[in-house]
Amino acid sequence: MNSTMNLTSTLTASLLAASAAFAEAPRTTEVSSSGDRASVAGPASSFVGTVTVTPLFAATELSNPSGAVVEFTPGARTAWHTHPAGQTLVILSGVGWVQQEGAEKLEVKAGDVVRFPPNVRHWHGASATNSMSHIAITPVVDGSGVDWLEQVTDETYGG
Amino acid sequence: MNSTMNLTSTLTASLLAASAAFAEAPRTTEVSSSGDRASVAGPASSFVGTVTVTPLFAATELSNPSGAVVEFTPGARTAWHTHPAGQTLVILSGVGWVQQEGAEKLEVKAGDVVRFPPNVRHWHGASATNSMSHIAITPVVDGSGVDWLEQVTDETYGG
Repeated sequence: MNSTMNLTSTLTASLLAASAAFAEAPRTTEVSSSGDRASVAGPASSFVGTVTVTPLFAATELSNPSGAVVEFTPGARTAWHTHPAGQTLVILSGVGWVQQEGAEKLEVKAGDVVRFPPNVRHWHGASATNSMSHIAITPVVDGSGVDWLEQVTDETYGG
Repeated sequence: MNSTMNLTSTLTASLLAASAAFAEAPRTTEVSSSGDRASVAGPASSFVGTVTVTPLFAATELSNPSGAVVEFTPGARTAWHTHPAGQTLVILSGVGWVQQEGAEKLEVKAGDVVRFPPNVRHWHGASATNSMSHIAITPVVDGSGVDWLEQVTDETYGG
């Protein structure tokens, strides 16, 4: 296994899996290029449609969130999920929808920042007509950054 | 003072000042647009050249870094500085230089991720010929995210 595969698998685990250990904080300045962090397809268990996740950085004991770029094709979205310490999205491009359970669906565009509270059921994705990409910044608590739940139905998504 | 000015001043304090309190974690999903978070000029005490800082999000008790977009015109750079819990840069555009004291200056480009260790003297900025922008993700520890030191000389910058 080469170092790119090692870095990618460590980072991907911290982004998509419920179980995610802290990485060691760097001891000297480290630069990674995109090519060191291969993109992975968002798994069908946690997403509807075509979703691409490119890891950016792992959580460490000093900087508690992990980071990734997530790209959604039109109509694609996450399943319902919660985060133990919430999540911050920086919208990079396109038009998307985000919804906290029990609240209205909100439209988001490039330049917007979304903050989800801890332990709140929510989903996010592209709009029906436009792609959307965001950086996701997700704190890891007790080895977990996300709890995945059921898929978002077409009725809820379009609602 | 309107809410935009309140949000901007809270966020800017957490980015540029040594003293930065945690913001409260959101209790419901919050979306802010770029227009809610006014850009500020990087002060001459901490930067050389034209640097623009646009806050993204504040540190909270659950998600310990603050975030901002920082844009450097060609030749512009930070002063030497340290971070109590290190810093992560996601390079958005352009070509830049980063240097940890005692190590070689490194070139960075769009898509690269830089991780600076805690309490290590370093600087970052655009290259001499190209602008550079990055997202800076900076954990706040005991009310402080950065300690600013002396300016980077032209000799060091060009070296």
